[in-house]
Amino acid sequence: MTTTLQFTKGQGTGNDFVLFTDPDASLEFTPALIRALADRRFGVGADGVIRAVRTAALPTEARLLEVEPRAEWFMDYHNADGSPAEMCGNGIRVFARYLVERGLVVLGDDDVLVVGTRAGAREVRRDGTGFRVDLGPWRLGDDDPVVRARELHAARPGLPVSLGNPHVVVALAGDDELDGLDLTYVPLIEPPRPDGANVEFVVPADPLVVDGLGRIRMRVHERGSGETLSCGTGAAAAALATRHWAGPSAPDGWLVDVPGGVVGVSISRHDDGEHVSLSGPAELVFTGALEL
Amino acid sequence: MTTTLQFTKGQGTGNDFVLFTDPDASLEFTPALIRALADRRFGVGADGVIRAVRTAALPTEARLLEVEPRAEWFMDYHNADGSPAEMCGNGIRVFARYLVERGLVVLGDDDVLVVGTRAGAREVRRDGTGFRVDLGPWRLGDDDPVVRARELHAARPGLPVSLGNPHVVVALAGDDELDGLDLTYVPLIEPPRPDGANVEFVVPADPLVVDGLGRIRMRVHERGSGETLSCGTGAAAAALATRHWAGPSAPDGWLVDVPGGVVGVSISRHDDGEHVSLSGPAELVFTGALEL
Repeated sequence: MTTTLQFTKGQGTGNDFVLFTDPDASLEFTPALIRALADRRFGVGADGVIRAVRTAALPTEARLLEVEPRAEWFMDYHNADGSPAEMCGNGIRVFARYLVERGLVVLGDDDVLVVGTRAGAREVRRDGTGFRVDLGPWRLGDDDPVVRARELHAARPGLPVSLGNPHVVVALAGDDELDGLDLTYVPLIEPPRPDGANVEFVVPADPLVVDGLGRIRMRVHERGSGETLSCGTGAAAAALATRHWAGPSAPDGWLVDVPGGVVGVSISRHDDGEHVSLSGPAELVFTGALEL
Repeated sequence: MTTTLQFTKGQGTGNDFVLFTDPDASLEFTPALIRALADRRFGVGADGVIRAVRTAALPTEARLLEVEPRAEWFMDYHNADGSPAEMCGNGIRVFARYLVERGLVVLGDDDVLVVGTRAGAREVRRDGTGFRVDLGPWRLGDDDPVVRARELHAARPGLPVSLGNPHVVVALAGDDELDGLDLTYVPLIEPPRPDGANVEFVVPADPLVVDGLGRIRMRVHERGSGETLSCGTGAAAAALATRHWAGPSAPDGWLVDVPGGVVGVSISRHDDGEHVSLSGPAELVFTGALEL
Protein backbone atom coordinates (compact mmCIF):
# COMPACT_ATOMS: atom_id res chain seq x y z
CA MET A 1 0.00 0.00 0.00
CA THR A 2 1.37 3.40 -0.86
CA THR A 3 1.03 6.47 1.32
CA THR A 4 0.69 9.93 -0.16
CA LEU A 5 2.85 12.57 1.51
CA GLN A 6 1.35 16.04 1.21
CA PHE A 7 4.12 18.59 1.51
CA THR A 8 4.97 22.25 1.03
CA LYS A 9 8.17 23.69 -0.35
CA GLY A 10 9.31 26.93 1.28
CA GLN A 11 12.34 29.20 1.37
CA GLY A 12 13.87 32.08 3.27
CA THR A 13 16.63 33.99 1.42
CA GLY A 14 17.11 30.95 -0.78
CA ASN A 15 17.61 28.49 2.08
CA ASP A 16 14.96 25.97 1.13
CA PHE A 17 12.90 23.34 2.90
CA VAL A 18 10.39 20.57 2.40
CA LEU A 19 7.73 20.89 5.13
CA PHE A 20 4.94 18.54 6.07
CA THR A 21 2.60 17.93 8.99
CA ASP A 22 2.66 14.73 11.04
CA PRO A 23 0.91 15.80 14.27
CA ASP A 24 1.08 12.45 16.05
CA ALA A 25 4.53 11.36 14.80
CA SER A 26 2.96 8.44 12.99
CA LEU A 27 5.21 8.58 9.91
CA GLU A 28 8.35 6.46 9.79
CA PHE A 29 10.64 9.44 9.37
CA THR A 30 13.93 7.78 8.42
CA PRO A 31 17.23 9.24 7.20
CA ALA A 32 16.66 7.41 3.89
CA LEU A 33 13.29 9.17 3.42
CA ILE A 34 14.84 12.54 4.30
CA ARG A 35 17.66 12.06 1.79
CA ALA A 36 15.18 10.97 -0.88
CA LEU A 37 12.99 14.04 -0.30
CA ALA A 38 15.97 16.43 -0.23
CA ASP A 39 17.57 15.07 -3.42
CA ARG A 40 17.36 17.85 -6.00
CA ARG A 41 17.28 15.53 -9.06
CA PHE A 42 15.50 12.38 -7.93
CA GLY A 43 13.32 13.88 -5.15
CA VAL A 44 11.81 17.26 -4.25
CA GLY A 45 15.07 19.03 -3.43
CA ALA A 46 15.90 21.10 -0.35
CA ASP A 47 18.60 22.10 2.12
CA GLY A 48 16.51 20.58 4.91
CA VAL A 49 13.34 18.67 5.69
CA ILE A 50 11.01 19.94 8.43
CA ARG A 51 8.29 17.87 10.04
CA ALA A 52 5.62 19.76 12.00
CA VAL A 53 4.85 17.46 14.89
CA ARG A 54 3.20 18.02 18.26
CA THR A 55 5.92 18.29 20.93
CA ALA A 56 3.83 16.01 23.15
CA ALA A 57 4.02 13.27 20.50
CA LEU A 58 7.82 12.99 20.64
CA PRO A 59 8.93 10.94 23.66
CA THR A 60 12.43 12.43 23.63
CA GLU A 61 11.21 16.04 23.35
CA ALA A 62 7.99 16.13 25.38
CA ARG A 63 9.86 17.22 28.55
CA LEU A 64 10.31 20.60 26.83
CA LEU A 65 6.64 21.25 27.67
CA GLU A 66 7.46 21.22 31.40
CA VAL A 67 9.76 24.20 30.85
CA GLU A 68 7.69 25.88 28.14
CA PRO A 69 4.09 24.68 27.88
CA ARG A 70 3.43 27.08 24.96
CA ALA A 71 5.72 25.01 22.65
CA GLU A 72 2.81 23.04 21.16
CA TRP A 73 4.51 22.49 17.77
CA PHE A 74 7.97 21.06 17.37
CA MET A 75 10.20 21.84 14.39
CA ASP A 76 11.62 18.39 13.64
CA TYR A 77 14.46 19.57 11.42
CA HIS A 78 16.87 17.38 9.47
CA ASN A 79 19.65 18.31 7.08
CA ALA A 80 19.62 17.09 3.46
CA ASP A 81 22.01 14.27 4.42
CA GLY A 82 19.46 12.86 6.91
CA SER A 83 21.18 14.05 10.07
CA PRO A 84 19.07 15.84 12.74
CA ALA A 85 19.89 19.49 13.45
CA GLU A 86 19.23 21.48 16.60
CA MET A 87 17.99 24.65 14.97
CA CYS A 88 17.83 26.52 11.68
CA GLY A 89 17.36 30.29 11.72
CA ASN A 90 15.88 30.49 8.22
CA GLY A 91 13.98 27.25 8.66
CA ILE A 92 12.16 28.41 11.77
CA ARG A 93 10.86 31.54 9.99
CA VAL A 94 9.59 29.39 7.10
CA PHE A 95 8.17 26.97 9.69
CA ALA A 96 6.29 29.87 11.33
CA ARG A 97 4.87 30.90 7.94
CA TYR A 98 3.84 27.29 7.33
CA LEU A 99 2.09 26.90 10.72
CA VAL A 100 0.22 30.17 10.16
CA GLU A 101 -0.78 29.55 6.52
CA ARG A 102 -1.93 26.00 7.22
CA GLY A 103 -4.04 27.22 10.14
CA LEU A 104 -2.10 25.19 12.71
CA VAL A 105 -1.57 28.36 14.79
CA VAL A 106 -3.12 31.81 14.88
CA LEU A 107 -0.58 34.62 15.14
CA GLY A 108 -1.56 38.28 15.48
CA ASP A 109 0.82 41.16 14.81
CA ASP A 110 1.88 41.39 18.46
CA ASP A 111 1.63 37.71 19.34
CA VAL A 112 4.49 35.40 20.22
CA LEU A 113 4.71 31.95 18.66
CA VAL A 114 6.76 29.53 20.75
CA VAL A 115 8.32 26.75 18.69
CA GLY A 116 9.90 23.61 20.10
CA THR A 117 13.35 22.77 18.67
CA ARG A 118 16.18 20.45 19.68
CA ALA A 119 17.95 23.58 20.98
CA GLY A 120 14.96 24.37 23.24
CA ALA A 121 11.94 26.65 22.86
CA ARG A 122 12.28 29.61 20.46
CA GLU A 123 10.09 32.74 20.23
CA VAL A 124 8.94 33.91 16.79
CA ARG A 125 7.11 37.15 15.96
CA ARG A 126 5.83 38.76 12.79
CA ASP A 127 8.25 41.40 11.49
CA GLY A 128 7.07 43.43 8.49
CA THR A 129 6.20 40.93 5.77
CA GLY A 130 8.49 38.30 7.31
CA PHE A 131 9.23 36.89 10.74
CA ARG A 132 11.78 37.47 13.49
CA VAL A 133 13.09 34.72 15.74
CA ASP A 134 14.88 35.11 19.05
CA LEU A 135 17.79 32.70 18.72
CA GLY A 136 18.48 33.01 22.46
CA PRO A 137 21.83 33.50 24.19
CA TRP A 138 25.07 33.21 22.34
CA ARG A 139 28.67 32.93 23.40
CA LEU A 140 32.16 33.20 22.00
CA GLY A 141 34.28 30.06 21.94
CA ASP A 142 37.39 29.89 24.05
CA ASP A 143 40.04 28.88 21.54
CA ASP A 144 41.66 30.47 18.49
CA PRO A 145 41.27 28.18 15.47
CA VAL A 146 42.56 28.89 11.99
CA VAL A 147 40.68 28.14 8.77
CA ARG A 148 42.01 27.04 5.38
CA ALA A 149 39.80 27.32 2.30
CA ARG A 150 40.31 26.65 -1.41
CA GLU A 151 41.53 29.72 -3.34
CA LEU A 152 42.35 31.47 -0.04
CA HIS A 153 46.11 31.86 0.31
CA ALA A 154 47.36 30.98 3.81
CA ALA A 155 45.33 30.01 6.86
CA ARG A 156 43.19 32.74 8.44
CA PRO A 157 42.19 33.26 12.07
CA GLY A 158 38.65 32.18 12.87
CA LEU A 159 36.39 33.27 15.73
CA PRO A 160 34.28 30.46 17.23
CA VAL A 161 30.70 31.52 18.00
CA SER A 162 28.07 29.24 19.50
CA LEU A 163 24.36 29.80 18.95
CA GLY A 164 23.33 26.35 20.05
CA ASN A 165 25.05 25.16 16.88
CA PRO A 166 28.77 25.79 16.31
CA HIS A 167 30.17 28.41 13.95
CA VAL A 168 33.60 29.70 13.03
CA VAL A 169 33.68 33.19 11.48
CA VAL A 170 36.54 34.36 9.26
CA ALA A 171 37.05 37.98 8.17
CA LEU A 172 38.32 38.46 4.61
CA ALA A 173 40.09 41.46 3.10
CA GLY A 174 37.48 42.37 0.50
CA ASP A 175 34.90 41.40 -2.08
CA ASP A 176 37.48 39.90 -4.44
CA GLU A 177 38.60 37.41 -1.81
CA LEU A 178 35.01 36.57 -0.87
CA ASP A 179 33.89 36.11 -4.49
CA GLY A 180 36.99 34.06 -5.34
CA LEU A 181 36.44 31.43 -2.62
CA ASP A 182 35.74 27.93 -3.90
CA LEU A 183 33.34 26.53 -1.30
CA THR A 184 32.74 23.32 -3.24
CA TYR A 185 35.61 22.21 -0.97
CA VAL A 186 35.03 21.90 2.79
CA PRO A 187 36.98 24.59 4.70
CA LEU A 188 39.44 23.02 7.14
CA ILE A 189 39.35 24.19 10.75
CA GLU A 190 42.45 23.63 12.91
CA PRO A 191 42.15 22.35 15.53
CA PRO A 192 39.09 20.52 14.12
CA ARG A 193 35.73 20.93 15.92
CA PRO A 194 34.54 17.64 17.42
CA ASP A 195 31.06 17.98 15.80
CA GLY A 196 32.15 20.07 12.83
CA ALA A 197 31.04 23.67 12.40
CA ASN A 198 29.48 26.03 9.90
CA VAL A 199 32.11 28.41 8.54
CA GLU A 200 31.15 32.00 7.69
CA PHE A 201 33.38 34.23 5.57
CA VAL A 202 32.59 37.92 6.03
CA VAL A 203 33.54 41.23 4.47
CA PRO A 204 32.55 44.42 6.32
CA ALA A 205 30.97 47.19 4.22
CA ASP A 206 32.80 50.50 3.87
CA PRO A 207 31.62 52.44 5.81
CA LEU A 208 30.70 49.69 8.26
CA VAL A 209 27.72 51.53 9.79
CA VAL A 210 25.02 53.35 7.79
CA ASP A 211 21.89 54.80 9.44
CA GLY A 212 22.83 53.12 12.72
CA LEU A 213 22.98 49.62 11.19
CA GLY A 214 26.15 47.61 10.68
CA ARG A 215 26.47 46.06 7.23
CA ILE A 216 28.42 43.02 6.12
CA ARG A 217 28.55 40.56 3.24
CA MET A 218 28.78 36.84 3.99
CA ARG A 219 29.20 33.45 2.32
CA VAL A 220 28.73 30.28 4.33
CA HIS A 221 29.71 26.62 4.19
CA GLU A 222 27.26 24.54 6.26
CA ARG A 223 28.41 21.28 7.74
CA GLY A 224 26.56 18.47 6.02
CA SER A 225 25.16 20.69 3.24
CA GLY A 226 28.04 22.52 1.54
CA GLU A 227 27.70 26.13 0.45
CA THR A 228 24.16 27.47 0.81
CA LEU A 229 22.58 30.72 -0.33
CA SER A 230 21.93 31.64 3.29
CA CYS A 231 22.31 30.32 6.83
CA GLY A 232 20.32 32.13 9.52
CA THR A 233 22.39 31.30 12.59
CA GLY A 234 25.46 31.84 10.38
CA ALA A 235 24.33 35.39 9.59
CA ALA A 236 23.84 35.98 13.31
CA ALA A 237 27.28 34.55 14.10
CA ALA A 238 28.84 36.71 11.38
CA ALA A 239 27.22 39.88 12.78
CA LEU A 240 28.20 38.98 16.36
CA ALA A 241 31.81 38.32 15.33
CA THR A 242 32.01 41.57 13.36
CA ARG A 243 30.56 43.49 16.32
CA HIS A 244 33.16 41.82 18.55
CA TRP A 245 35.99 42.83 16.23
CA ALA A 246 34.62 46.38 15.81
CA GLY A 247 34.71 47.07 19.55
CA PRO A 248 32.37 48.76 22.05
CA SER A 249 31.11 51.46 19.66
CA ALA A 250 29.64 48.91 17.25
CA PRO A 251 25.84 48.87 16.84
CA ASP A 252 23.41 46.15 17.97
CA GLY A 253 21.53 46.07 14.65
CA TRP A 254 23.01 44.53 11.48
CA LEU A 255 22.06 43.85 7.89
CA VAL A 256 23.74 40.76 6.49
CA ASP A 257 23.94 40.44 2.70
CA VAL A 258 23.98 36.73 1.82
CA PRO A 259 23.89 35.21 -1.70
CA GLY A 260 20.12 34.58 -1.33
CA GLY A 261 19.08 38.00 -0.03
CA VAL A 262 19.35 40.15 3.09
CA VAL A 263 18.59 39.22 6.69
CA GLY A 264 18.52 41.41 9.79
CA VAL A 265 20.34 40.58 13.02
CA SER A 266 19.68 42.40 16.32
CA ILE A 267 21.13 41.99 19.79
CA SER A 268 19.11 42.72 22.94
CA ARG A 269 19.63 42.37 26.70
CA HIS A 270 17.67 39.80 28.70
CA ASP A 271 17.77 38.41 32.24
CA ASP A 272 19.99 35.57 31.07
CA GLY A 273 22.34 37.83 29.11
CA GLU A 274 22.41 38.99 25.49
CA HIS A 275 20.07 37.40 22.96
CA VAL A 276 20.45 37.57 19.21
CA SER A 277 17.43 37.76 16.87
CA LEU A 278 17.16 37.05 13.17
CA SER A 279 14.59 38.64 10.84
CA GLY A 280 13.91 38.19 7.16
CA PRO A 281 11.65 36.83 4.44
CA ALA A 282 9.88 33.45 4.67
CA GLU A 283 7.89 32.25 1.66
CA LEU A 284 5.88 29.17 0.78
CA VAL A 285 6.62 28.38 -2.89
CA PHE A 286 4.39 25.45 -3.83
CA THR A 287 2.43 22.52 -2.47
CA GLY A 288 3.03 18.97 -3.60
CA ALA A 289 2.09 15.34 -3.20
CA LEU A 290 4.40 12.35 -3.49
CA GLU A 291 3.78 8.60 -3.21
CA LEU A 292 5.98 7.01 -0.53
CA MET B 1 -6.31 37.42 -9.79
CA THR B 2 -3.86 34.59 -9.33
CA THR B 3 -3.71 31.49 -11.49
CA THR B 4 -2.80 28.11 -10.06
CA LEU B 5 -0.32 26.13 -12.15
CA GLN B 6 -0.73 22.39 -11.71
CA PHE B 7 2.55 20.70 -12.57
CA THR B 8 4.45 17.42 -12.32
CA LYS B 9 8.13 16.93 -11.57
CA GLY B 10 9.81 14.10 -13.48
CA GLN B 11 13.29 12.75 -14.16
CA GLY B 12 15.17 10.32 -16.38
CA THR B 13 18.61 9.22 -15.10
CA GLY B 14 18.68 12.36 -12.96
CA ASN B 15 17.97 14.78 -15.80
CA ASP B 16 14.94 16.55 -14.33
CA PHE B 17 11.96 18.47 -15.64
CA VAL B 18 8.91 20.46 -14.62
CA LEU B 19 5.98 19.39 -16.82
CA PHE B 20 2.50 20.86 -17.19
CA THR B 21 -0.41 20.75 -19.62
CA ASP B 22 -1.60 23.78 -21.55
CA PRO B 23 -3.55 22.20 -24.46
CA ASP B 24 -4.64 25.42 -26.13
CA ALA B 25 -1.45 27.43 -25.49
CA SER B 26 -3.41 29.85 -23.34
CA LEU B 27 -0.71 30.40 -20.73
CA GLU B 28 1.72 33.29 -21.12
CA PHE B 29 4.78 31.07 -21.20
CA THR B 30 7.61 33.59 -20.83
CA PRO B 31 11.35 33.10 -20.28
CA ALA B 32 10.91 34.78 -16.87
CA LEU B 33 8.29 32.20 -15.86
CA ILE B 34 10.51 29.35 -17.09
CA ARG B 35 13.51 30.64 -15.13
CA ALA B 36 11.35 31.08 -12.01
CA LEU B 37 10.02 27.51 -12.27
CA ALA B 38 13.47 26.02 -12.94
CA ASP B 39 15.17 27.84 -10.05
CA ARG B 40 16.20 25.17 -7.53
CA ARG B 41 15.99 27.43 -4.45
CA PHE B 42 13.25 29.97 -5.16
CA GLY B 43 11.12 27.88 -7.55
CA VAL B 44 10.47 24.20 -8.26
CA GLY B 45 13.89 23.37 -9.69
CA ALA B 46 14.73 21.52 -12.92
CA ASP B 47 17.12 21.24 -15.86
CA GLY B 48 14.24 22.05 -18.19
CA VAL B 49 10.56 23.03 -18.33
CA ILE B 50 8.21 21.11 -20.64
CA ARG B 51 4.77 22.32 -21.68
CA ALA B 52 2.41 19.73 -23.16
CA VAL B 53 0.52 21.67 -25.81
CA ARG B 54 -1.48 20.59 -28.86
CA THR B 55 0.68 21.02 -31.95
CA ALA B 56 -2.33 22.57 -33.70
CA ALA B 57 -2.44 25.31 -31.07
CA LEU B 58 1.05 26.64 -31.87
CA PRO B 59 1.00 28.83 -35.00
CA THR B 60 4.73 28.35 -35.64
CA GLU B 61 4.61 24.55 -35.24
CA ALA B 62 1.21 23.53 -36.67
CA ARG B 63 2.71 22.93 -40.14
CA LEU B 64 4.39 19.85 -38.63
CA LEU B 65 0.95 18.20 -38.79
CA GLU B 66 1.03 18.36 -42.61
CA VAL B 67 4.13 16.14 -42.57
CA GLU B 68 3.14 14.02 -39.57
CA PRO B 69 -0.56 14.19 -38.64
CA ARG B 70 0.02 11.80 -35.70
CA ALA B 71 2.02 14.47 -33.80
CA GLU B 72 -0.99 15.60 -31.76
CA TRP B 73 1.07 16.68 -28.72
CA PHE B 74 4.04 19.00 -28.90
CA MET B 75 6.91 18.90 -26.39
CA ASP B 76 7.43 22.62 -25.83
CA TYR B 77 10.85 22.31 -24.19
CA HIS B 78 12.86 25.13 -22.66
CA ASN B 79 16.18 25.05 -20.83
CA ALA B 80 16.45 26.29 -17.25
CA ASP B 81 17.78 29.62 -18.54
CA GLY B 82 14.54 30.23 -20.47
CA SER B 83 15.92 29.47 -23.95
CA PRO B 84 13.94 27.11 -26.22
CA ALA B 85 15.61 23.80 -27.16
CA GLU B 86 14.94 21.61 -30.17
CA MET B 87 15.00 18.24 -28.44
CA CYS B 88 16.00 16.49 -25.24
CA GLY B 89 16.57 12.74 -25.28
CA ASN B 90 15.82 12.25 -21.58
CA GLY B 91 13.07 14.86 -21.58
CA ILE B 92 11.06 13.20 -24.35
CA ARG B 93 10.96 9.89 -22.44
CA VAL B 94 9.69 11.69 -19.32
CA PHE B 95 7.24 13.58 -21.56
CA ALA B 96 5.94 10.24 -22.90
CA ARG B 97 5.48 8.96 -19.34
CA TYR B 98 3.63 12.16 -18.47
CA LEU B 99 1.25 11.99 -21.47
CA VAL B 100 0.45 8.35 -20.67
CA GLU B 101 0.02 8.77 -16.89
CA ARG B 102 -2.15 11.86 -17.28
CA GLY B 103 -4.36 10.04 -19.79
CA LEU B 104 -3.54 12.46 -22.62
CA VAL B 105 -2.57 9.51 -24.85
CA VAL B 106 -3.15 5.77 -24.75
CA LEU B 107 -0.01 3.75 -25.54
CA GLY B 108 -0.04 -0.05 -25.80
CA ASP B 109 3.12 -2.15 -25.64
CA ASP B 110 3.51 -2.18 -29.44
CA ASP B 111 2.14 1.29 -30.16
CA VAL B 112 4.10 4.23 -31.47
CA LEU B 113 3.68 7.65 -29.87
CA VAL B 114 4.60 10.45 -32.25
CA VAL B 115 5.69 13.60 -30.42
CA GLY B 116 6.10 17.00 -32.01
CA THR B 117 9.38 18.77 -31.22
CA ARG B 118 11.24 21.74 -32.66
CA ALA B 119 13.54 19.17 -34.33
CA GLY B 120 10.51 17.55 -36.04
CA ALA B 121 8.35 14.56 -35.17
CA ARG B 122 9.92 11.87 -32.96
CA GLU B 123 8.72 8.29 -32.42
CA VAL B 124 8.55 6.96 -28.85
CA ARG B 125 7.79 3.37 -27.79
CA ARG B 126 7.51 1.54 -24.50
CA ASP B 127 10.72 -0.37 -23.69
CA GLY B 128 10.64 -2.55 -20.59
CA THR B 129 9.67 -0.29 -17.68
CA GLY B 130 10.90 2.80 -19.55
CA PHE B 131 10.63 4.29 -23.02
CA ARG B 132 12.72 4.34 -26.21
CA VAL B 133 12.91 7.29 -28.57
CA ASP B 134 14.17 7.29 -32.16
CA LEU B 135 16.50 10.30 -32.30
CA GLY B 136 16.66 10.06 -36.11
CA PRO B 137 19.72 10.19 -38.38
CA TRP B 138 23.16 11.14 -37.13
CA ARG B 139 26.46 12.00 -38.79
CA LEU B 140 30.15 12.33 -37.99
CA GLY B 141 31.72 15.77 -38.27
CA ASP B 142 34.39 16.41 -40.87
CA ASP B 143 37.24 17.86 -38.83
CA ASP B 144 39.60 16.62 -36.10
CA PRO B 145 39.36 18.86 -33.04
CA VAL B 146 41.32 18.44 -29.82
CA VAL B 147 39.88 18.96 -26.32
CA ARG B 148 41.54 20.31 -23.18
CA ALA B 149 39.93 19.75 -19.78
CA ARG B 150 40.90 20.59 -16.19
CA GLU B 151 42.93 17.80 -14.51
CA LEU B 152 43.49 16.15 -17.91
CA HIS B 153 47.16 16.31 -18.89
CA ALA B 154 47.68 17.31 -22.54
CA ALA B 155 45.04 17.89 -25.21
CA ARG B 156 43.14 14.83 -26.44
CA PRO B 157 41.66 14.10 -29.87
CA GLY B 158 37.88 14.58 -30.07
CA LEU B 159 35.37 13.11 -32.53
CA PRO B 160 32.60 15.49 -33.65
CA VAL B 161 29.15 13.84 -33.81
CA SER B 162 25.94 15.62 -34.82
CA LEU B 163 22.51 14.45 -33.64
CA GLY B 164 20.73 17.64 -34.55
CA ASN B 165 22.74 19.19 -31.71
CA PRO B 166 26.58 19.20 -31.78
CA HIS B 167 28.79 16.89 -29.69
CA VAL B 168 32.51 16.21 -29.37
CA VAL B 169 33.45 12.82 -27.87
CA VAL B 170 36.80 12.19 -26.16
CA ALA B 171 38.10 8.73 -25.20
CA LEU B 172 40.00 8.54 -21.90
CA ALA B 173 42.49 5.89 -20.74
CA GLY B 174 40.54 4.62 -17.73
CA ASP B 175 38.29 5.21 -14.75
CA ASP B 176 40.92 7.18 -12.84
CA GLU B 177 41.16 9.75 -15.59
CA LEU B 178 37.37 9.95 -15.92
CA ASP B 179 36.77 10.30 -12.17
CA GLY B 180 39.57 12.85 -11.82
CA LEU B 181 38.15 15.29 -14.39
CA ASP B 182 37.04 18.63 -12.98
CA LEU B 183 34.06 19.55 -15.16
CA THR B 184 33.24 22.66 -13.14
CA TYR B 185 35.50 24.16 -15.82
CA VAL B 186 34.28 24.31 -19.43
CA PRO B 187 36.33 21.94 -21.66
CA LEU B 188 38.09 23.83 -24.45
CA ILE B 189 37.61 22.60 -28.02
CA GLU B 190 40.21 23.58 -30.65
CA PRO B 191 39.26 24.76 -33.17
CA PRO B 192 36.21 26.08 -31.28
CA ARG B 193 32.71 25.10 -32.49
CA PRO B 194 30.72 28.13 -33.75
CA ASP B 195 27.66 27.26 -31.59
CA GLY B 196 29.56 25.43 -28.85
CA ALA B 197 29.13 21.71 -28.28
CA ASN B 198 28.39 19.19 -25.57
CA VAL B 199 31.58 17.32 -24.68
CA GLU B 200 31.40 13.64 -23.71
CA PHE B 201 34.30 11.87 -22.00
CA VAL B 202 34.11 8.10 -22.35
CA VAL B 203 35.89 5.05 -21.00
CA PRO B 204 35.24 1.70 -22.72
CA ALA B 205 34.55 -1.25 -20.43
CA ASP B 206 37.00 -4.16 -20.42
CA PRO B 207 35.90 -6.33 -22.17
CA LEU B 208 34.11 -3.82 -24.39
CA VAL B 209 31.31 -6.19 -25.44
CA VAL B 210 29.38 -8.44 -23.04
CA ASP B 211 26.35 -10.47 -24.16
CA GLY B 212 26.39 -8.69 -27.51
CA LEU B 213 26.15 -5.19 -26.00
CA GLY B 214 28.93 -2.63 -26.01
CA ARG B 215 29.52 -0.98 -22.64
CA ILE B 216 31.00 2.41 -21.81
CA ARG B 217 31.12 4.90 -18.96
CA MET B 218 30.54 8.58 -19.69
CA ARG B 219 30.62 12.00 -18.09
CA VAL B 220 29.27 15.00 -19.98
CA HIS B 221 29.63 18.76 -20.00
CA GLU B 222 26.55 20.34 -21.60
CA ARG B 223 26.91 23.72 -23.25
CA GLY B 224 24.97 26.26 -21.22
CA SER B 225 24.39 23.89 -18.28
CA GLY B 226 27.76 22.57 -17.08
CA GLU B 227 28.20 18.98 -15.97
CA THR B 228 24.90 17.09 -15.73
CA LEU B 229 24.01 13.66 -14.36
CA SER B 230 22.94 12.56 -17.83
CA CYS B 231 22.54 13.83 -21.39
CA GLY B 232 20.50 11.62 -23.71
CA THR B 233 21.88 12.76 -27.05
CA GLY B 234 25.32 12.82 -25.41
CA ALA B 235 25.01 9.14 -24.47
CA ALA B 236 24.02 8.38 -28.07
CA ALA B 237 26.98 10.37 -29.42
CA ALA B 238 29.34 8.58 -27.00
CA ALA B 239 28.12 5.15 -28.14
CA LEU B 240 28.31 6.13 -31.83
CA ALA B 241 31.87 7.43 -31.43
CA THR B 242 32.99 4.31 -29.56
CA ARG B 243 31.43 2.10 -32.25
CA HIS B 244 33.27 4.16 -34.88
CA TRP B 245 36.60 3.70 -33.06
CA ALA B 246 35.99 -0.02 -32.46
CA GLY B 247 35.59 -0.74 -36.18
CA PRO B 248 33.24 -2.87 -38.28
CA SER B 249 32.91 -5.71 -35.75
CA ALA B 250 31.42 -3.42 -33.09
CA PRO B 251 27.80 -4.04 -32.04
CA ASP B 252 24.78 -1.82 -32.71
CA GLY B 253 23.52 -2.02 -29.12
CA TRP B 254 25.18 -0.16 -26.23
CA LEU B 255 24.75 0.42 -22.52
CA VAL B 256 26.00 3.81 -21.38
CA ASP B 257 26.73 4.25 -17.67
CA VAL B 258 26.21 7.93 -16.78
CA PRO B 259 26.40 9.50 -13.28
CA GLY B 260 22.57 9.41 -13.01
CA GLY B 261 22.03 5.81 -14.13
CA VAL B 262 22.22 3.67 -17.27
CA VAL B 263 20.71 4.34 -20.70
CA GLY B 264 20.58 2.11 -23.77
CA VAL B 265 21.61 3.22 -27.25
CA SER B 266 20.77 1.23 -30.41
CA ILE B 267 21.48 1.82 -34.07
CA SER B 268 19.15 0.65 -36.83
CA ARG B 269 18.94 1.01 -40.64
CA HIS B 270 16.17 3.10 -42.22
CA ASP B 271 15.39 4.40 -45.71
CA ASP B 272 17.14 7.67 -44.89
CA GLY B 273 20.23 5.97 -43.40
CA GLU B 274 21.13 4.92 -39.87
CA HIS B 275 18.99 6.08 -36.96
CA VAL B 276 20.04 6.06 -33.32
CA SER B 277 17.57 5.31 -30.51
CA LEU B 278 17.80 6.04 -26.80
CA SER B 279 16.11 3.97 -24.11
CA GLY B 280 16.01 4.30 -20.34
CA PRO B 281 14.02 5.12 -17.24
CA ALA B 282 11.46 7.91 -17.08
CA GLU B 283 9.82 8.61 -13.73
CA LEU B 284 7.24 11.05 -12.42
CA VAL B 285 8.40 12.08 -8.94
CA PHE B 286 5.64 14.31 -7.54
CA THR B 287 2.74 16.55 -8.44
CA GLY B 288 2.53 20.17 -7.34
CA ALA B 289 0.56 23.38 -7.47
CA LEU B 290 1.97 26.88 -7.54
CA GLU B 291 0.30 30.31 -7.59
CA LEU B 292 1.46 32.39 -10.57
